[in-house]
Amino acid sequence: MSKPLILVTNDDGISAKGIRSLCEIAQMFGEVVLIAPDSPQSGMGHAITIHEPIRLNEDDLFEGIKSYSCSGTPVDCVKIGIYEVMKRKPDLVVSGINHGSNAATNVLYSGTMSAAVEGAMEGISSVGFSLESYDSDANFEISKKVVEQVIKAMLNNEFAKNICLNVNIPNVSESDFKGIKIARQGHAFWEDRFEKRNDQFNKPYYWLAGDFLKMDAEEGTDLYWLEKGYASIVPTKYDLTAFEMIDELNNWKL
Amino acid sequence: MSKPLILVTNDDGISAKGIRSLCEIAQMFGEVVLIAPDSPQSGMGHAITIHEPIRLNEDDLFEGIKSYSCSGTPVDCVKIGIYEVMKRKPDLVVSGINHGSNAATNVLYSGTMSAAVEGAMEGISSVGFSLESYDSDANFEISKKVVEQVIKAMLNNEFAKNICLNVNIPNVSESDFKGIKIARQGHAFWEDRFEKRNDQFNKPYYWLAGDFLKMDAEEGTDLYWLEKGYASIVPTKYDLTAFEMIDELNNWKL
Repeated sequence: MSKPLILVTNDDGISAKGIRSLCEIAQMFGEVVLIAPDSPQSGMGHAITIHEPIRLNEDDLFEGIKSYSCSGTPVDCVKIGIYEVMKRKPDLVVSGINHGSNAATNVLYSGTMSAAVEGAMEGISSVGFSLESYDSDANFEISKKVVEQVIKAMLNNEFAKNICLNVNIPNVSESDFKGIKIARQGHAFWEDRFEKRNDQFNKPYYWLAGDFLKMDAEEGTDLYWLEKGYASIVPTKYDLTAFEMIDELNNWKL
Repeated sequence: MSKPLILVTNDDGISAKGIRSLCEIAQMFGEVVLIAPDSPQSGMGHAITIHEPIRLNEDDLFEGIKSYSCSGTPVDCVKIGIYEVMKRKPDLVVSGINHGSNAATNVLYSGTMSAAVEGAMEGISSVGFSLESYDSDANFEISKKVVEQVIKAMLNNEFAKNICLNVNIPNVSESDFKGIKIARQGHAFWEDRFEKRNDQFNKPYYWLAGDFLKMDAEEGTDLYWLEKGYASIVPTKYDLTAFEMIDELNNWKL
């Protein structure tokens, strides 16, 4: 096998510490091309930019890596990487390391994971990594070891191209880190609040806040293993069909 | 049962023709509260606004309906509707009618469908409607009949709260419309191109274009039924776990 071509992206933006750690490890496995948002794009989900143009600027933040900052979303970064910058499909799409967990239902809001899902939709082995810490100066040492193990396993194993991996890493010390577990997506949701304030013209504005409620942290879920000090890997697909409901719906009078 | 409380939203924005048609029908079933983006938000997927404030303005576009335009995404509209405007969960979240198909993999990019998915995540019966026409003056007469049938069936049947419905309607004449079919999500993807041009300062910009490739329009998929003149209903879930891969991944050396 020739040296793998690896597209690296994230949603925290090109200057985040997490993507620097990810590049460090990805470089050990192949030729890295980095294309990341020029500003934070957390919570962008699977958004794409269709009503306005996208800017792409070559960057020299990372020695030995062709890198670009992009005005678009994480999914835009994957698309422009494949279709404009590389002009061919990379062997691997690697996204993160996200500052903050993308376990459970967070996968739907996460730009980091949507970039990996987009890679899978293009038939590319893809993975998103997230550390359970929002700290911009978080410690990524354990994460880097997990990234190394997972990328190695992805290159050594065939797996269905229509899935990607959602890897979450607990924010624990080296001695409390227990290992890696395959998991299912736990159910949790944000009980939202909106902070309502008035601006300088006395007009109201709202700002999203909320509490993360873990509804299903039962054994086998990513939430369960993370709490126990394990990194979790959830195989993640983009076919959202609830097959188990098709028979029931066929009984509806329509 | 008391009169259902129905939250109506979309991604084409509050002034789109499609949401007007949707409100017309929703009003027949209960008390409607309309909260929709103040500008087009197509392709926003499951994006939420976390880095900036959201504006919400009361509107009087629709007679007899409490309506609000919102500066946020479709998912923001659902959240602010539940947690700020209504202060309680509605009985139904109804999104659309989208100008353009959200069949197959489009469900992931669609703000219209993400609003319905967000409703499901909140445990609310939710549905997104889309017409296979991008025309801003599209004919929604058949769509309105489909909307009526589907909302009636949703109110008359119990179904699992962790799914929503993705309803797509073909853009055909009344005589060519065949009925409604329950379907699975077809596989298709956008083979993207980026139009590269130079701006007035001779700096390049890129604009996303592309062709929609139908990879799997086999019998049973939404793509299949739409081509035959049927509206399709795909039960859609937000648990993205690829359960069929868990055993295989457990064999990986990690």
